[in-house]
Amino acid sequence: MTRWEPGARERLERAALELFAQQGFAETTVPEIAARAGLTTRTFFRHYADKREVLFAGDDEIPSRIAALMADAPPDLKPMALIAWGLHTTADTAFAGQREHMRARRAVIQTDAGLGERELRKQVTLAHAIAGALRDRGLDELSATLAGKIAITVFSTAIQRWLDDDRERPLGDILGEGLDALKTLAREEGARPPSETVC
Amino acid sequence: MTRWEPGARERLERAALELFAQQGFAETTVPEIAARAGLTTRTFFRHYADKREVLFAGDDEIPSRIAALMADAPPDLKPMALIAWGLHTTADTAFAGQREHMRARRAVIQTDAGLGERELRKQVTLAHAIAGALRDRGLDELSATLAGKIAITVFSTAIQRWLDDDRERPLGDILGEGLDALKTLAREEGARPPSETVC
Repeated sequence: MTRWEPGARERLERAALELFAQQGFAETTVPEIAARAGLTTRTFFRHYADKREVLFAGDDEIPSRIAALMADAPPDLKPMALIAWGLHTTADTAFAGQREHMRARRAVIQTDAGLGERELRKQVTLAHAIAGALRDRGLDELSATLAGKIAITVFSTAIQRWLDDDRERPLGDILGEGLDALKTLAREEGARPPSETVC
Repeated sequence: MTRWEPGARERLERAALELFAQQGFAETTVPEIAARAGLTTRTFFRHYADKREVLFAGDDEIPSRIAALMADAPPDLKPMALIAWGLHTTADTAFAGQREHMRARRAVIQTDAGLGERELRKQVTLAHAIAGALRDRGLDELSATLAGKIAITVFSTAIQRWLDDDRERPLGDILGEGLDALKTLAREEGARPPSETVC
């Protein structure tokens, strides 16, 4: 019963998402998820505290992933340029090929207020981790806090637009539009992002 | 039993906050809240769906309040200036004299992950309402979405700092620091807000 199950987490995640989509989040039980994945309920609980957490797999690793990303960043970037670099890098790696999976996940989350609230908590965790990395690079507390939240605002807005789009446009392009719009807003030059901004 | 109870909402809110602080959110029941307020359980449920919603009284009115605020705004402000005006106006009116009440409310919310997630959902509602008001004034969809979220980011960060502070500094001053830090970040001029920014 305690033997190692290769890919158990991924199998449970896929099984859960299928069942949530087919029969609803509230209607799905942990034994059903485990059975669909060909695993025991006991194995389920070795990997996840409850069925909700299956949709938030990997959240524990967020701070260490962001720290690793920041360690790879070019050293001289100013805060927003560093954020843009980090978000573009993440878009090009972690999110590549994930659009259909993420659309399915979002569809489930949208059916349940509690899941939506949990998703927001994930964004707070991400913003804190980014703020911490910026503080470690010497940014003051207030600017780091705001920059972390703004990074997540821009990224989550880009992801929603990416998932909404009928065509599959590259996430990096959509992200770039958001970063441009942010800059334009902050500079109060007008409502539409100009292609070139000369100060 | 159905007679009008003057100030019932406010009495229930005060009673709930007292009980949550004294004995914990999870441990407090609706009949206890109603009894502390000198009202019936039935009256409680005429005003609130459950004990959690007492902490989020007035959320339904957010869109109409923001619309009313925007209707009063000077007509020629660009988006971020409009946001700064709206946030400062809100800080000076709705939040004046509320610091101790809000500290007590926050202390309760911090004890329960579900309450924290509900608080985040409230921020999303606020951001949507601001975005809608900006779209109504002609701002494009993406910029309005980002600006609504950034407004709430700056405001909620200011409120946290206001509540954290040992001294009671005016919320408007703390808010101004956040708006300056945002501008500096977006302009990438450095990590600290300069007192005067000449472009």
